[in-house]
Amino acid sequence: MNWIEQAVKPLDPQAVAAATARQQQLTKPAGALGELEVLAIRLAGMQGRTCPQLDRVSIAVFAADHGVAAEGVSAYPQAVTAEMVRNFAQGGAAISVAAHALGAELRVWNLGTVVELEPLPGVESRVIAAQSGNLLRAAAMTSVQLQQALDVGREAVLHLPAELFIGGEMGIGNTTAATALAAALLAAPVADLVGPGTGLDAKGVAHKCRIIEQALARHGDDRAPLALLASLGGFEIAALTGAYLACAQQGTPVLVDGFICTVAALLACRINAGVADWLIFAHHSAEPGYQRLCAMLPSRPLLDLGLRLGEGSGAATAVPLLRMACTLHAGMATFAEAAVSEQDG
Amino acid sequence: MNWIEQAVKPLDPQAVAAATARQQQLTKPAGALGELEVLAIRLAGMQGRTCPQLDRVSIAVFAADHGVAAEGVSAYPQAVTAEMVRNFAQGGAAISVAAHALGAELRVWNLGTVVELEPLPGVESRVIAAQSGNLLRAAAMTSVQLQQALDVGREAVLHLPAELFIGGEMGIGNTTAATALAAALLAAPVADLVGPGTGLDAKGVAHKCRIIEQALARHGDDRAPLALLASLGGFEIAALTGAYLACAQQGTPVLVDGFICTVAALLACRINAGVADWLIFAHHSAEPGYQRLCAMLPSRPLLDLGLRLGEGSGAATAVPLLRMACTLHAGMATFAEAAVSEQDG
Repeated sequence: MNWIEQAVKPLDPQAVAAATARQQQLTKPAGALGELEVLAIRLAGMQGRTCPQLDRVSIAVFAADHGVAAEGVSAYPQAVTAEMVRNFAQGGAAISVAAHALGAELRVWNLGTVVELEPLPGVESRVIAAQSGNLLRAAAMTSVQLQQALDVGREAVLHLPAELFIGGEMGIGNTTAATALAAALLAAPVADLVGPGTGLDAKGVAHKCRIIEQALARHGDDRAPLALLASLGGFEIAALTGAYLACAQQGTPVLVDGFICTVAALLACRINAGVADWLIFAHHSAEPGYQRLCAMLPSRPLLDLGLRLGEGSGAATAVPLLRMACTLHAGMATFAEAAVSEQDG
Repeated sequence: MNWIEQAVKPLDPQAVAAATARQQQLTKPAGALGELEVLAIRLAGMQGRTCPQLDRVSIAVFAADHGVAAEGVSAYPQAVTAEMVRNFAQGGAAISVAAHALGAELRVWNLGTVVELEPLPGVESRVIAAQSGNLLRAAAMTSVQLQQALDVGREAVLHLPAELFIGGEMGIGNTTAATALAAALLAAPVADLVGPGTGLDAKGVAHKCRIIEQALARHGDDRAPLALLASLGGFEIAALTGAYLACAQQGTPVLVDGFICTVAALLACRINAGVADWLIFAHHSAEPGYQRLCAMLPSRPLLDLGLRLGEGSGAATAVPLLRMACTLHAGMATFAEAAVSEQDG
């Protein structure tokens, strides 16, 4: 049996009950910590302990080039994918700086770049091809390549056992692939979803919209998640999908980054609905397509700061909120401990 | 001259320009870090340096009892104010736990509690009276008491020089005072603003609404901020107003907590419009009145997590976002440093 079809780990109902009971006893009005209470209780259920911890955070950034970049759908040249992988390795990218600040372990997974990369510290080479197929003219990948990419996602999860997993992505052209996938997932008009990505102007966005519409027309109506990934995806998007599936199977909480990661997460939920229990959505991406995805999410994203960088940077920004939720949950006194009077009546 | 009338420090335009230029050179699409970029640039202007820092964070919690508690406007007994001050001192309250986690300096300022407090570590006794006047039947405070409370706010700011100031509050009944002030500030119907505070039921909220409406009718139409504070405020709300004014005069960035602190911040802006430059709004409080205050804020609150605890806890929760903004701003490589290609065209 392919690992993808394996069952997802269930949450621990006893830990959820114990964490819920603890929240009721902390010295604050019931519910006054809002989403921070919900997060602490959800993480308790995922980690199977009354007081969850987030000391060990693993960040895996998946990088890959996209054949559709040839259609002029990005504001940046394709060489930037490989250049940014070097920047990740050298510590200069947003996710590198954020990972260091959080004490998180960052690993980059190179699934294939047009500019070939030399060995780099912290970068695992798992090259599937120099780039995915141009989804306007062909399938993005073969079924063998799809399985390879999914496997790399799982490998990244197993590689660094952690109390929280963050996936990130880098790939010039990948908002085009993600928007095509989102349009197919939502059965929504491309024009309602398409956006500037790294910074296209209005004319560029209109062109990108036409490319995606033509690609969707070419690939037909198969909405099965793996078929969609093969025809419209990218190696890093498939790896993210595999990673989220593996997290839910292993029992590792996931903090999902922005637009592209959320598309991958929704694909993972289509493959196995139980994955949703393991996903915390970090932030509301500024990419217009995210607005439409929101309605499908099993929970509300934590932040809305107009971020649209990718790399996992929005998820990294939200880690301190999760940690604060856990710290308050574990560290606050109960009414009895502090001799504070409870609510009247 | 009363210190309240002193000028507010201007922002540093050169630091703003240098920080803005730096953001344009960092290895990311321009604007891709959204509000995190805006925060780094604003903090640069406040701190007068290209790369702002937030190592030294000072949290001052102002505690005071309210005469209006006699009208049955809170879900909790009045003794909780003093009990929570003890809990702050013992480290068991949300703000104590959060301050410790952030490495922030927490100081509590006791402006008067119905249950008299013994000396406590980390608590400064500046008792003005056992409680403010019951605003339904009298002025909340005399002009002498108002000045005392404003002075304590300034003292708290001068006491602990910091790179960021957070004010918090504790006082059973203080959402009643804050809602009365908000209704007067906004010239809005009380029914549009009033909420459950620490946890009133619908009947309790309706009763609280009537008390506030009657109080507003009693105190007439003087909308001058100091007159409003004296008739409808509370000692801790006046102290917060004084603290925010002093921060803007000293040049200390302020992270404003939820509903009550935001009312105090808007009063400080009415006293001196320049205060607004020094305020960062931390979170969208779940208290219904906050929704209406939002339209008057000079900038958008960072978080919206349904928090309604007070104590400065929402502002503390937002500190890591500000720190992440500063860390990314200072630590990311530029395009030139990382040899990453810039945008096409």
